Amino acid sequence: MAEPSEATDAAQAPRGLSRRGLLGLAGAGLAGLGVGVAGDRAALAATAAATGTKAAGAYAFYGTHQAGIVTPAQDRLHFAAFDMSPGSSRDDLIELLKDWTVASAAMTAGRDIGDFGAAGGPYDAPPEDTGEALGLPASGLTITVGFGPTLFQATDGTDRFGLAHNRPAELTTLPHFPGDLLEEARSGGDLCIQACANDPQVAVHAIRNLSRIAFGRAAIRWSQLGFGRTSSTSTSQATARNLFGFKDGTANVMAEEPGAAAEHVWVQPGEGPAWLAGGSYLVARRIRMTIETWDRSILSEQEAVIGRTKGEGAPLSGGTEFTEPDFALAGRSGPLIGPHAHMRLAHPDQNHGIRLLRRGYNFVDGNDELGRLAAGLFFISFQRSPEQFITVQQNLAGHDALNEYIRHVGSALFAVPPGVRPGSFLGAPLFAP
Amino acid sequence: MAEPSEATDAAQAPRGLSRRGLLGLAGAGLAGLGVGVAGDRAALAATAAATGTKAAGAYAFYGTHQAGIVTPAQDRLHFAAFDMSPGSSRDDLIELLKDWTVASAAMTAGRDIGDFGAAGGPYDAPPEDTGEALGLPASGLTITVGFGPTLFQATDGTDRFGLAHNRPAELTTLPHFPGDLLEEARSGGDLCIQACANDPQVAVHAIRNLSRIAFGRAAIRWSQLGFGRTSSTSTSQATARNLFGFKDGTANVMAEEPGAAAEHVWVQPGEGPAWLAGGSYLVARRIRMTIETWDRSILSEQEAVIGRTKGEGAPLSGGTEFTEPDFALAGRSGPLIGPHAHMRLAHPDQNHGIRLLRRGYNFVDGNDELGRLAAGLFFISFQRSPEQFITVQQNLAGHDALNEYIRHVGSALFAVPPGVRPGSFLGAPLFAP
Repeated sequence: MAEPSEATDAAQAPRGLSRRGLLGLAGAGLAGLGVGVAGDRAALAATAAATGTKAAGAYAFYGTHQAGIVTPAQDRLHFAAFDMSPGSSRDDLIELLKDWTVASAAMTAGRDIGDFGAAGGPYDAPPEDTGEALGLPASGLTITVGFGPTLFQATDGTDRFGLAHNRPAELTTLPHFPGDLLEEARSGGDLCIQACANDPQVAVHAIRNLSRIAFGRAAIRWSQLGFGRTSSTSTSQATARNLFGFKDGTANVMAEEPGAAAEHVWVQPGEGPAWLAGGSYLVARRIRMTIETWDRSILSEQEAVIGRTKGEGAPLSGGTEFTEPDFALAGRSGPLIGPHAHMRLAHPDQNHGIRLLRRGYNFVDGNDELGRLAAGLFFISFQRSPEQFITVQQNLAGHDALNEYIRHVGSALFAVPPGVRPGSFLGAPLFAP
Repeated sequence: MAEPSEATDAAQAPRGLSRRGLLGLAGAGLAGLGVGVAGDRAALAATAAATGTKAAGAYAFYGTHQAGIVTPAQDRLHFAAFDMSPGSSRDDLIELLKDWTVASAAMTAGRDIGDFGAAGGPYDAPPEDTGEALGLPASGLTITVGFGPTLFQATDGTDRFGLAHNRPAELTTLPHFPGDLLEEARSGGDLCIQACANDPQVAVHAIRNLSRIAFGRAAIRWSQLGFGRTSSTSTSQATARNLFGFKDGTANVMAEEPGAAAEHVWVQPGEGPAWLAGGSYLVARRIRMTIETWDRSILSEQEAVIGRTKGEGAPLSGGTEFTEPDFALAGRSGPLIGPHAHMRLAHPDQNHGIRLLRRGYNFVDGNDELGRLAAGLFFISFQRSPEQFITVQQNLAGHDALNEYIRHVGSALFAVPPGVRPGSFLGAPLFAP
């Protein structure tokens, strides 16, 4: 196969993994396998990617918007940020996005990304699919891809992929917030993939295989597993609890709210570069919780910090979980929901009506040397503009009583392209001539 | 409450968290709260621990054997090894085990370990339960506790808890196996807790709260989350796949096999110290898989290494997954199941009939600096004698073709006391006068 030109490549529908993608599976050491084998496997991959069937519990991969945003939040997460490999080209990037499209369409439909030899596949080649999800249903898998600021312009100013003119003005590194203790190795990235599913093996399988396909073109910069969703994104879901033991995401943007997604989540036509219309912005923040300290604080302190009761999740101004808070209602010594309560500072009423679609996950990544669990919240939010997050986070970072118990240690911002039309590929409008 | 003597203490049934356990919840800084509050909360904890009700999906905590061994393997794991705190006494250890008994009985029944203020609980004290599992069902939670060699005799020979004469002769550090690359910080431990559940939030909640109760008496030495079970322990379960993409645990000891648990899993009366009869030995091995290298090996190599087909999981000698392998059946160049095939070397026929009850989990703990997933198998096996594991592992460590793709980086051995009789506590027979 000749090197494709940008124009024809962008217009062409991917029908299977690229030759590069297939050879990537074998690694540099086996690149001599030859085109004959790669051709056979490309055909197999194309078959696997045909969108004829639909597994139980599968969300459509193709559509106006990418799945995994207003989709009812699944239970488990594997998130990975990638950097493009040194020396990789614009064509490499396009080819990678096409390969990710083919593989994502297959996996979200409950299929493996290719044959692995069970029925006549090539026995003398590495299996196309790693196999650990074989026999498992789609499990609600969604794969959501985003583009980081450095994809458009490297930190040294280099325009590696000819995309600098297409960078949305708002897609820059998030500002430093008071208290930020960010680790470079847990922040940023050229690309991201959010894989959510109701079975962690399915989410892990997705990131592993997409990472494998990227071999030689992009590599994981950082990654995060999340075991428990902390936000509902649909009124059909019960509110879940974070590791502080409180219900989280009660006032989240819900898929069923008429107009809410258009107002708060989806970039509208004319708001930035044309390629991003129908897309969104993804903010990821790794928030470590000092849960041992929290666990030793008294209940009244915990509830005052959050601004809600722990059991019911009702605002301290009264009612039940879904009662609107009354921020003016006074108790014996000031408002019942204090001026530094997390819920007050995060609430749309205190932020010019700003709302975010939160989609975070609890994590525990082992323990530290003192035996304390390395636990926290992997915060994810989707918004029409990064300014929404920045406004709310500036409010929280400066005043939130919860800051005593948390540390923001990772941060990233990605522009999430719109959904993929059948026959096209992830982010295709970005590369339109 | 006066310091209890050993004899009365061992005989006495725990009715709630000890005063020490309750104060542990508050931490040293709040220890001045006073006995009044602690008394109230002890009463609440006792109420919560009453075994009247049973949540859906709950396994009995009390019984002849501890749960979490022949129990059908749940989907998720949080495992923690603990060290007793410097200066802690035999009474501290007994009290801790009683507190863990009370809390474990509550949590496995789907209850929180105490009140957290929702209905009249103390508002000016730290909540007894951390709260993140509130509203979640029992989710099949089992808690299985084990005793490490160092609990009986410290590495410097000190008999810290007056238990040296009770140490089973077989309970020592496992021997060094060829290829072992063990990390001290991921090995050993005075105590262990295996928490398995079908909801990871429930398993994490259990370890977190048991660790919190231990404050000042024991602290986590190392811990491991597992997201996918790799072994079935019941014929009612489908065989799951490990991260090499192969079915694992096909020939496992199954709960339904008449006599198999007695023959292979449970320590029989007269085999060691009396306190261990009805117990077992738990081996934990953290096995890192170099999955990127594995993924680039060709299918025929992968199947030859394992000795089974990847899709069906059938022995290379033919048949289906559950067909008995024919180790003598020859192909064109030697036996179809080669001399170094993992399945041959691990098979009871090649190990004097030895079998283990395997109960391992897949893990992914982020990624390394090169973007490779830090993935592997957290191997857990239960056996009547450590010699069973040692024999099989010596066979594998010396000859297994799979060794090219794995590294054993963590290791621990624990004696698992028998089940708890209602009114008694975990490991009580060990402390009998």
